[in-house]
Amino acid sequence: MFLDENFLLTNEWAKKLFHAYAKDEPIIDYHCHLEPTVIFENKQYGNLTRLWLNDEGIGDHYKWRLMRANGVDESLVTGDGDDYEKFLAFVKTMEKAPGNPIYEWSHLELRRYFDIDLTINTANAEKIWELANAKIKTDAYRPKELLEMMQVKAVCTTDDPVDTLEYHTALAKENNSFKVLPTFRPDNAWMIEVPTYSNYIARLSAASGVSIKTFADLKAALSNRVAYFHEKGGRLADQGLNTYFYKAAQEAELDDLLTRALSGATDFTSTELAQFSTAVQLHLMAAYNEHNWTMQMHMNALRNNSTKTQREIGINVGGDSMGDQVSLASQVVALLAQAEELGILPKTILYSLNPNDWLPLATAMQSFQGGVVQKLQLGCAWWFNDTFDGMKEQLTTMASQSLLANFTGMLTDSRSFLSYPRHEYFRRVLCQVLGEWLEQGRIPTDEAYLSQIVKAISYENAYHYFGFFD
Amino acid sequence: MFLDENFLLTNEWAKKLFHAYAKDEPIIDYHCHLEPTVIFENKQYGNLTRLWLNDEGIGDHYKWRLMRANGVDESLVTGDGDDYEKFLAFVKTMEKAPGNPIYEWSHLELRRYFDIDLTINTANAEKIWELANAKIKTDAYRPKELLEMMQVKAVCTTDDPVDTLEYHTALAKENNSFKVLPTFRPDNAWMIEVPTYSNYIARLSAASGVSIKTFADLKAALSNRVAYFHEKGGRLADQGLNTYFYKAAQEAELDDLLTRALSGATDFTSTELAQFSTAVQLHLMAAYNEHNWTMQMHMNALRNNSTKTQREIGINVGGDSMGDQVSLASQVVALLAQAEELGILPKTILYSLNPNDWLPLATAMQSFQGGVVQKLQLGCAWWFNDTFDGMKEQLTTMASQSLLANFTGMLTDSRSFLSYPRHEYFRRVLCQVLGEWLEQGRIPTDEAYLSQIVKAISYENAYHYFGFFD
Amino acid sequence: MFLDENFLLTNEWAKKLFHAYAKDEPIIDYHCHLEPTVIFENKQYGNLTRLWLNDEGIGDHYKWRLMRANGVDESLVTGDGDDYEKFLAFVKTMEKAPGNPIYEWSHLELRRYFDIDLTINTANAEKIWELANAKIKTDAYRPKELLEMMQVKAVCTTDDPVDTLEYHTALAKENNSFKVLPTFRPDNAWMIEVPTYSNYIARLSAASGVSIKTFADLKAALSNRVAYFHEKGGRLADQGLNTYFYKAAQEAELDDLLTRALSGATDFTSTELAQFSTAVQLHLMAAYNEHNWTMQMHMNALRNNSTKTQREIGINVGGDSMGDQVSLASQVVALLAQAEELGILPKTILYSLNPNDWLPLATAMQSFQGGVVQKLQLGCAWWFNDTFDGMKEQLTTMASQSLLANFTGMLTDSRSFLSYPRHEYFRRVLCQVLGEWLEQGRIPTDEAYLSQIVKAISYENAYHYFGFFD
Repeated sequence: MFLDENFLLTNEWAKKLFHAYAKDEPIIDYHCHLEPTVIFENKQYGNLTRLWLNDEGIGDHYKWRLMRANGVDESLVTGDGDDYEKFLAFVKTMEKAPGNPIYEWSHLELRRYFDIDLTINTANAEKIWELANAKIKTDAYRPKELLEMMQVKAVCTTDDPVDTLEYHTALAKENNSFKVLPTFRPDNAWMIEVPTYSNYIARLSAASGVSIKTFADLKAALSNRVAYFHEKGGRLADQGLNTYFYKAAQEAELDDLLTRALSGATDFTSTELAQFSTAVQLHLMAAYNEHNWTMQMHMNALRNNSTKTQREIGINVGGDSMGDQVSLASQVVALLAQAEELGILPKTILYSLNPNDWLPLATAMQSFQGGVVQKLQLGCAWWFNDTFDGMKEQLTTMASQSLLANFTGMLTDSRSFLSYPRHEYFRRVLCQVLGEWLEQGRIPTDEAYLSQIVKAISYENAYHYFGFFD
Repeated sequence: MFLDENFLLTNEWAKKLFHAYAKDEPIIDYHCHLEPTVIFENKQYGNLTRLWLNDEGIGDHYKWRLMRANGVDESLVTGDGDDYEKFLAFVKTMEKAPGNPIYEWSHLELRRYFDIDLTINTANAEKIWELANAKIKTDAYRPKELLEMMQVKAVCTTDDPVDTLEYHTALAKENNSFKVLPTFRPDNAWMIEVPTYSNYIARLSAASGVSIKTFADLKAALSNRVAYFHEKGGRLADQGLNTYFYKAAQEAELDDLLTRALSGATDFTSTELAQFSTAVQLHLMAAYNEHNWTMQMHMNALRNNSTKTQREIGINVGGDSMGDQVSLASQVVALLAQAEELGILPKTILYSLNPNDWLPLATAMQSFQGGVVQKLQLGCAWWFNDTFDGMKEQLTTMASQSLLANFTGMLTDSRSFLSYPRHEYFRRVLCQVLGEWLEQGRIPTDEAYLSQIVKAISYENAYHYFGFFD
Repeated sequence: MFLDENFLLTNEWAKKLFHAYAKDEPIIDYHCHLEPTVIFENKQYGNLTRLWLNDEGIGDHYKWRLMRANGVDESLVTGDGDDYEKFLAFVKTMEKAPGNPIYEWSHLELRRYFDIDLTINTANAEKIWELANAKIKTDAYRPKELLEMMQVKAVCTTDDPVDTLEYHTALAKENNSFKVLPTFRPDNAWMIEVPTYSNYIARLSAASGVSIKTFADLKAALSNRVAYFHEKGGRLADQGLNTYFYKAAQEAELDDLLTRALSGATDFTSTELAQFSTAVQLHLMAAYNEHNWTMQMHMNALRNNSTKTQREIGINVGGDSMGDQVSLASQVVALLAQAEELGILPKTILYSLNPNDWLPLATAMQSFQGGVVQKLQLGCAWWFNDTFDGMKEQLTTMASQSLLANFTGMLTDSRSFLSYPRHEYFRRVLCQVLGEWLEQGRIPTDEAYLSQIVKAISYENAYHYFGFFD
């Protein structure tokens, strides 16, 4: 039974829908953290540790967190330990991880990429190491080949407005089976409390050709970069809002805040930070809407919780957690209402890292729908929620409060080329949920109808909604 | 399987309990938004769109929200579009709505009222339209007949303290198979921040015969109207508290706030608003308790989120969502504790639109129980929570923290005469949950015992608890 | 089916794992509220009411809450009513309690301790009363014998730093089949807002031999008592943080706060309370860490909600509920980060009474793992969450965000000697969850591997993690 063809599928309809309609659909990975450079250079990884866990400090920090929970020394997590020892420490961690999605994903990764169906445990460790490494040494296990193997049609990377996108440009000239498209991630533009803000603005000035002195300049520079991203195939933005509070401001106040930030100030009040962030969000929404882009809002995260880890290892290394901002949905409602009033509300996908926000957000977005099919969506189960139960809850929430058949489905959000079985995992959960509803008598036993829904959520909705191929 | 006789019932005990004991129980609809005028006049609706979706701007805004999510133009939602086109737009929306309760309810509504068992989709649209309209044109499909068809024994409408209740009076003189009873909904009495507050108080003065100048006058006027409602058969109040914060105040402060409000001020601090609201709640609780009424508290809602929708279409048109007030349960505890101290705590039903509050509220209410069987209850799954999962969670929460067998069960909360199958839906969920517990070995396989519980929650508890027929 | 051998176990693997590997494991009860005096004196209870419900005002307030919800007069709950009448009122309450864990626990208690397999209802009441009382009158139903009957190997009581632990000392000299160990519960040390704080500090001065005038004195006194508890076998602390807010302070500020508190002041600001609490937490964490203790944090509770109940009956009598503190996880993150920076973070178990906090806390703790196997854990489903669904959610959360196989499992948290079947209940839920994952194909069908996990979580992890037997 373990991870067999009917993994996660416990009713007949679920099995039929998955195998006949979901399994073979291609993948649009509309949000991930793969590096375009690495794709372009098509790096060869030397062994399973490098490809799977950690390559020069870059890798899958979902796995790192679990290793630390098992008491593994940091030298075997992100440090300079031996690659095989690192692999072994991960294997021993997996033995403690029943019910953790990493346990299931890691097994799926070995099976789908390497045809290794061994259970990950100490007894099998050496054999897995050898079998995988033999393949990794071949050209078939470089990034481009791995993307092709998984039928990926589009990869949306995560890029700063100041990025040159030169690797995206270079990749676009190649004849790959997939597109690599930039995503506009402008968080740095509103974080005036960060000591390096003025340096960032200098870079943004340079990139945009707009000398940024006033808030109007900042807006012009950002608009310029949105247009540049659009030219390079970008159709998507991504706002990382660890917290969000709505606060209106006058242009003069914003000019003043910008001036203070550019002169190195970091002592802003929470009201001032909310004002500046809100004004930048609203300007960006207008720019996105003008280009018919989709805005993703990734909200309610605590980042770099451990001062020690951040200092000694860095950021994005597994030290984050779910936020619990007060009244998030109320604040988002205020932003969406203002954008709607101004006629600038773009297609929007709302993600919260805290699932307590999902029902409030899903019901809130329904107040602003109209004009476009599923203008607002509840984002798929993000990050720590990418579990069987989390995915099921997200699908149920989207279904109960809005129109599930319009949902754009899964993304990878990964730093690893081995993460694409997450899409298979998602599709199994989707088919299982539909199968459960069928068994309850809640949806018709109409295979033609259901096959459309399964294919739409697996692939077609993302294809049409984002317009990457228009 | 789709919506067959065992819809939602997946174990043998659930089937037995539903068919033998739940299905045929009558209905007490102790909270809804039907208009007594419309019942009294027994209006004939011309077609399915008018009866089901929208009649001159009045109708089922649960359905409107979903249509907007499918990108339907407002002219076909609440606008002046053609009735058949509106119906067709709704049908197309339903095709996207698997897993949404509206999908299931809409099908149940066609089946239970019209004997139409067609799936709602484009292919069947014309046939459904014709079959339903042929029936709607007969006298059997007027409001009174629809209520009788569904075995409704009591309908509690939602009424302002200033209402004359003339249609309730008129209906009481008729020989109907159901009672139509008023519910006291006094929200307007504490909302001093609303610009029209002084107008409202003028109306309350007129209705009560008490010239309201001081807070004592306001209390006297409200007591007067509670007594009037009681005379007209009212046994129930309903406080709509979008947010609630407990704050004590001196009578002189309340007088001052009232004076300011009557002179047109709207610039109250949040502390002042909390003080005024708290004082009015406490007075009303005393009045309700004196008459042995039940107080419903409907809490944690965001209303009229979209400024644009409110301006262009109005309120109660589908622009609301779940609130996420901070520390709601803590504030409610403070109110209940003070009411208990004063000896004025009435029978109380606590509803929150945000299910994150249910466990905190269900455990909080247990601190104030005593003297009366189930003096405090956790309200049934309200509004956006009226889903299979929401109802199941509410039942499980009520059961795990208090005494499920004392629960007063389902209400409709609807603006449509076609919504009564929601009671059937609820009873199926109830029997399914009991059946699951039986299969787990958590409750005895004692049919006589279980039949009592099923009938109590379906009908009898509401009959005895509210005292509408005493 | 009702409560038969496969109670809660609905799949084959669950049944196999429970009966073969979980059922017979001994119990380490690492958190409860049993009185060491009562164990030492090995009191004989006269009848079932005394042993089960209420003995001179001490007893199982979980049961009291439910009785009040059924309208039972307080004289039959905590008052001076007749013991049989009290029992009968409880029986009638049970008839209304399907789906409540007390219903299931109470039946298990009769079965496991008394071999009475009658359903608790009015018809069986007299027979149950007689059968149970006949046994209670024998020596086999005194506290020590009851602990032995349930295979309890360690009982951790809850003790104030000023306690002499004389009964722990006396019990340690006996030849019992179980250890009775103290737990350091220092809440009184930081609650400067309590009017009796200076009295408490006088007692702490006396107990520690440190005259407490400055914050440094307070720290020295607490360290002294930690060392004393350690000597008496204590390896565990328990902080009861109804709310928690992180706030740094200077030593001089803390001295000032202490001076004010010792002079009887209670008018502290919320910032001051947070500063004092935070400083005490950080000192205690250092002391615990130095002794390789484990710190439990029990958070987010509202206590003594009813002013009337507290005044008339007291505290710990069933008047508490789930808290809903704002941003709890964010505050805990700040405390853990600071402790980690200072190198004083002990083994820590995080409990929140509000399950909305579990995912935020479980993800937060992962940011501070390392060096020790499962240094931080998510505490088991606490108090009102000790339900089938609550336990399942806790296990799923611990599994999805960390390493379930390292979890230290269940505790009793009870004031009654009849509560040990809660461990059986927990183990059934654990095996059921594992069985469900097996059926989904999420974990290997490897009996040797799974038996290790089941035994580890049932008993062995607690044995090794806490070090009570080292």
